[in-house]
Amino acid sequence: MSHEKHQQLIQVLHECMAACNHCFDACLQEENVKMMAECIRLDRECADICNFLEQALARNTPFAAALASVCATVCEACGNECQKHDHDHCQECAKACFACAEACRKFAA
Amino acid sequence: MSHEKHQQLIQVLHECMAACNHCFDACLQEENVKMMAECIRLDRECADICNFLEQALARNTPFAAALASVCATVCEACGNECQKHDHDHCQECAKACFACAEACRKFAA
Amino acid sequence: MSHEKHQQLIQVLHECMAACNHCFDACLQEENVKMMAECIRLDRECADICNFLEQALARNTPFAAALASVCATVCEACGNECQKHDHDHCQECAKACFACAEACRKFAA
Amino acid sequence: MSHEKHQQLIQVLHECMAACNHCFDACLQEENVKMMAECIRLDRECADICNFLEQALARNTPFAAALASVCATVCEACGNECQKHDHDHCQECAKACFACAEACRKFAA
Repeated sequence: MSHEKHQQLIQVLHECMAACNHCFDACLQEENVKMMAECIRLDRECADICNFLEQALARNTPFAAALASVCATVCEACGNECQKHDHDHCQECAKACFACAEACRKFAA
Repeated sequence: MSHEKHQQLIQVLHECMAACNHCFDACLQEENVKMMAECIRLDRECADICNFLEQALARNTPFAAALASVCATVCEACGNECQKHDHDHCQECAKACFACAEACRKFAA
Repeated sequence: MSHEKHQQLIQVLHECMAACNHCFDACLQEENVKMMAECIRLDRECADICNFLEQALARNTPFAAALASVCATVCEACGNECQKHDHDHCQECAKACFACAEACRKFAA
Repeated sequence: MSHEKHQQLIQVLHECMAACNHCFDACLQEENVKMMAECIRLDRECADICNFLEQALARNTPFAAALASVCATVCEACGNECQKHDHDHCQECAKACFACAEACRKFAA
């Protein structure tokens, strides 16, 4: 079944979506928001595409590989930005993004 | 933290989204698709609002209660339709929908 | 036809979604991002629910009124925040939000 | 400004999203739903990615080209399925899909 076949990737996407949204929320509450502007932007980009792909995989989309390939690119970019910042939420988000980027790349291959 | 505060509801929403999307996909492959038309329609409605609310809670939305209240209505309607059909995917989807409706109602209260 | 029946509201939602996303993007590039944090947060909330409702109306959702009612609340809140700021993108966004809130409220009634 | 820069593509995406959702709704009400199953599936796929890209362009996403390229693939597939069916909603949807596929391809290039 589609949702079982893709279950592991769906879980990784879900965790990345949650980490990015938490980082988005936390960045908006930081003292120095200006420094976090690019992080805020990419957190939203990454959360949105992970959220989209979660659902697309769960409905057995015929476009899984192409979507996963774009998602890997977005996760990679978000992880690269997040890892520049020392906040725990950024470091955790970077970890989730890199894990998701790798899972998406493997899946798309 | 928002994503921890809401973690249990996010999980229930995620399971309901997955069950609805699986049911959507499976209904489209049934012999008698016509009989499943309302189920297909409501599976999409329910999957979409659960998917939306998952992400909204993860980013600590200020509109959590109002969104959960609408989500409960949609889950209830989808569960009522799904439970009319004997297919395993419909019965499982109904169960996930009713669990999610109840969790959303409690949350919104 | 559903998409014609709802065509006017879909258009208003689309314009509000575009204004909120433009404001989100522009706020992240402002000198004083910290002052715009709540605006950035609400721009995303409002863009997301307008985008969701656009599509839900286009597919003839059975939950149009309930969704429009929540959408009105979100648009109102975003408009209230945006109108506090002098930037053109905030003032234009506030206008789009209030127009959309009113259209959603009328529709839901 | 981003939303002006991308305004034409956003409009084409919006029209394709509306046509796909109308076709989805209408297919579910056809006498012979089984024959429309693949059309229903692809209508949802196409509406969802167009809706996603509309919003991503409006917020000035850094991933516009990669997303437009995937979107072109989905629109093409949906158009190919829709044009097989004589219903007006399918023929109109096919036209919107092919127009959107072409606009996305040009944009991505």
